[in-house]
Amino acid sequence: MKSDLECLVCLFKQALNTVKIATPDTVLQREVINRVTEIVKTANLDLSPAEISTVVYRIVSEVTGIADPYKIIKQKTNQDALQLIPVLQRLIAEAKDPLDAALHIAAAGNVIDIGIGHPFDLENDIILSMTAPFSINDIESFRLELKPGVQLLYIGDNCGEIVFDRVLVEELLKHGITITFVVKSGPIINDATMEDAETVGMTDIVPVIETGSDDIGVNFNRVSKKFCQLFDTADIVLAKGHGNFETLIGIPKNIYFLLKAKCDVVAKELGVQKDYSVFKHQSGRC
Amino acid sequence: MKSDLECLVCLFKQALNTVKIATPDTVLQREVINRVTEIVKTANLDLSPAEISTVVYRIVSEVTGIADPYKIIKQKTNQDALQLIPVLQRLIAEAKDPLDAALHIAAAGNVIDIGIGHPFDLENDIILSMTAPFSINDIESFRLELKPGVQLLYIGDNCGEIVFDRVLVEELLKHGITITFVVKSGPIINDATMEDAETVGMTDIVPVIETGSDDIGVNFNRVSKKFCQLFDTADIVLAKGHGNFETLIGIPKNIYFLLKAKCDVVAKELGVQKDYSVFKHQSGRC
Repeated sequence: MKSDLECLVCLFKQALNTVKIATPDTVLQREVINRVTEIVKTANLDLSPAEISTVVYRIVSEVTGIADPYKIIKQKTNQDALQLIPVLQRLIAEAKDPLDAALHIAAAGNVIDIGIGHPFDLENDIILSMTAPFSINDIESFRLELKPGVQLLYIGDNCGEIVFDRVLVEELLKHGITITFVVKSGPIINDATMEDAETVGMTDIVPVIETGSDDIGVNFNRVSKKFCQLFDTADIVLAKGHGNFETLIGIPKNIYFLLKAKCDVVAKELGVQKDYSVFKHQSGRC
Repeated sequence: MKSDLECLVCLFKQALNTVKIATPDTVLQREVINRVTEIVKTANLDLSPAEISTVVYRIVSEVTGIADPYKIIKQKTNQDALQLIPVLQRLIAEAKDPLDAALHIAAAGNVIDIGIGHPFDLENDIILSMTAPFSINDIESFRLELKPGVQLLYIGDNCGEIVFDRVLVEELLKHGITITFVVKSGPIINDATMEDAETVGMTDIVPVIETGSDDIGVNFNRVSKKFCQLFDTADIVLAKGHGNFETLIGIPKNIYFLLKAKCDVVAKELGVQKDYSVFKHQSGRC
């Protein structure tokens, strides 16, 4: 999807939030803001928000010398989310429609603030999030596609959230399908990498591969041959979160997007209200 | 008060919101954003947010050729708020402590979104807003100062809100004090000007003067001699809203600030939580 002028404004917000996590040095913080002004002046709005904002995170790393500002946050969200696995598994097991419950739980992983509250509060947030219906819900066409032998490429998003993805993967495996899970090849925001996939046990249940790059979402100019081949041959792609939606919407491929519309620009693109979640099918026919 | 890096990020938000009101032309919108990047790169954070952001509104006017982008919004909020006068007057008349009620109503004028809802909804919003206690409340020292003959300079803020200020002015006049109300000399955001003071009948009850400039808040480098003299001789200054707080906090003068902390930077400066209102006394002793 294309970017909006709102995305340029958002770049500064993202830059400041991230550099504040990286360093308390206000001189470096100011340097990041000034470097971002250069990006904004020449930014091509025909690129996706993910493509434009990836550069901002690189600037933060360059200026501060910190390659992975979210490292501690990522570790904490993984650990907090791991404690929730028995709860998540029970919620799915007790559900009338386990697939629907697992999809809502995976969406909740993209919605709730893991790493902030106590496990008890998080459990309440999850249950609350599960009762909120998707604004777009293509679960029935998805259910029809889940036949034994079908190959599904699950493109993950954030740390913490990846634990919620794991319980959805466990549920999907019961349908006899083959799943490959995808993480980033290097740190970008709080996105999950191979280390996180190992920490949360994703590597124990399905093959996990990397995109081949440390871009937000999927950048086909920088992905690995292996990722590209698996993307090409997969029967179904399940793509989590903003970054994957922004970079894959419009690509001729059978994709299901699972995300919360966290800003007005993505909400408008989806045709839903901000702060609502969707499970949206893109049929792949041009 | 000084600015924070957050204020630089906020400049883009303010610029985009305003240029979108001024024109649907995305080329002009982009030009505004690019012009703001130049401001941001060289902005002196020792200046107040009001001083830095005033320039942004001038850029919007220069680029679009529209001197007063908020003109229609200002007229609508004035008309909507005028319909509420009987309600506001009744709420004060029925209150156990009319001064406290009038201060809360004047604060509510800074809080609620006049010009968006119906009068009926607005009435509910006002009542709700009146029941929220101020996070800082210096009403008792203010009450002690309200003696006959005392001169109070009331520095107004926005359109719509100025109607709420009018009912507070009416209540204050019962204490036998002398009041001069202050508006801007030219359009800046949705701030009230002389035309608005006339429209809402402020000029019928007290003398109304202009700051002498079209700056957000008070810019002592650009105010008129008349404003400066009245500010100097006033026994009490009552300053409404963000802009006046940002430019007058720290000035050695007996000032009462009445505002809602609408952003983290001002909330931090006040030492209160964001979205809460205060009636804060600055004693004027250095």
